[in-house]
Amino acid sequence: MTPDDLVEYEQIKRLKYAYFRCIDLKLWDEIETLFVEDAECAYSAGAYSYQGRDAIVGFFRKAMDRETFLSSHKVHHPEIELTSATTARATWALEDTVIDTLWNLRITGASFYEDEYVKVEGSWKFKKTGYKRVFEELEPRSPETQLTASWWGTGGRSSLPAPE
Amino acid sequence: MTPDDLVEYEQIKRLKYAYFRCIDLKLWDEIETLFVEDAECAYSAGAYSYQGRDAIVGFFRKAMDRETFLSSHKVHHPEIELTSATTARATWALEDTVIDTLWNLRITGASFYEDEYVKVEGSWKFKKTGYKRVFEELEPRSPETQLTASWWGTGGRSSLPAPE
Amino acid sequence: MTPDDLVEYEQIKRLKYAYFRCIDLKLWDEIETLFVEDAECAYSAGAYSYQGRDAIVGFFRKAMDRETFLSSHKVHHPEIELTSATTARATWALEDTVIDTLWNLRITGASFYEDEYVKVEGSWKFKKTGYKRVFEELEPRSPETQLTASWWGTGGRSSLPAPE
Repeated sequence: MTPDDLVEYEQIKRLKYAYFRCIDLKLWDEIETLFVEDAECAYSAGAYSYQGRDAIVGFFRKAMDRETFLSSHKVHHPEIELTSATTARATWALEDTVIDTLWNLRITGASFYEDEYVKVEGSWKFKKTGYKRVFEELEPRSPETQLTASWWGTGGRSSLPAPE
Repeated sequence: MTPDDLVEYEQIKRLKYAYFRCIDLKLWDEIETLFVEDAECAYSAGAYSYQGRDAIVGFFRKAMDRETFLSSHKVHHPEIELTSATTARATWALEDTVIDTLWNLRITGASFYEDEYVKVEGSWKFKKTGYKRVFEELEPRSPETQLTASWWGTGGRSSLPAPE
Repeated sequence: MTPDDLVEYEQIKRLKYAYFRCIDLKLWDEIETLFVEDAECAYSAGAYSYQGRDAIVGFFRKAMDRETFLSSHKVHHPEIELTSATTARATWALEDTVIDTLWNLRITGASFYEDEYVKVEGSWKFKKTGYKRVFEELEPRSPETQLTASWWGTGGRSSLPAPE
């Protein structure tokens, strides 16, 4: 491992971070730029599998676009391996929360990602991505739970009072 | 992006990590050293906005000092950009949990930070910081929930038994 | 701090990430390779303290091996310091969730780790590790909560439907 390898790792991390910023903020045009055209995904051990960038981004738009679907996907613990000058693979640990105020549900989970990347014209892109769940839970939101802020509903501002 | 850039990124990450260690452990004297004097904050899309290091740290002391206010703030997915030899900006993703045993509440949220940093005498400091919420939820803690450890109440030791 | 220091930091991070991948996936043979023989641990402010690699790994096997014990341990905010060419120390922030479907409990917590590492034949290993809790909560899982995926029960695949 050399300092130059670390530059590649950092660029691959940025790709992954941009992906999740796009997921949680519903930036579907930007997320499209992060995949090569023939990319493949196999989310949830293949339960949600799509071939090609258009199908993958189409899945995102269908599954996560409505503003009552509020999500936080965070990745951890990258173990990245450069397999050639223009290819790499990585394992990441995911934790995710979905608050669905339409169906009044909360979904929480932990997973491990296996990714493959390819460098095209100097930029790392997703070639393959997918995860398997360590666990996933679905629970109703309690009637006592209040949504006190959301990106779309309140412009990201809390309705909780500041300390006096 | 060069290996030397990565050194700057690492130092900026350390600044952010020290900030959150100070927040969750209530280290108000140390946190003061992380801001320049004319720093500004706009937390929760401006709901909690303060001008100047003293006002910012005063807000922390008022809002988060009591030992029945237990918090975990974790940042993820840094996208750091050096804008000159002594200035930088970054986006970070936050997840935070507050357990308030005085009011018997739990607050959980996800946010995106936008920060600006300045390097003063070789050390990166906060110049501007603020976040917008993707979501924030407030819920009562169930009477069945037990606090089995806390930094201040039990010296960080769990009362749960070890496996036999 | 130099680019070469960053290579050491990255290798130490990989050690920590492999450790938690092994914890959450129950890879006890692999985790054994991450400790020196005379390693020590003091988890939960010493509530769970063990001397020697065999005792530490024995604790893991006893405490976390059953497949109804589902965990997600994630570490954040590394502040790593190289103390010589072959020794280092670090602070990390932990968040962890345990879903125990045998006892129908959920345990969640936040902690700070203090670690010591030693480099042996070119590989960083754990010499000392331990954490103190900022907080820890124990709560019963609601009868309405459904486990919709697990690594061992469903091969990591969700039973939730894809969007139509």
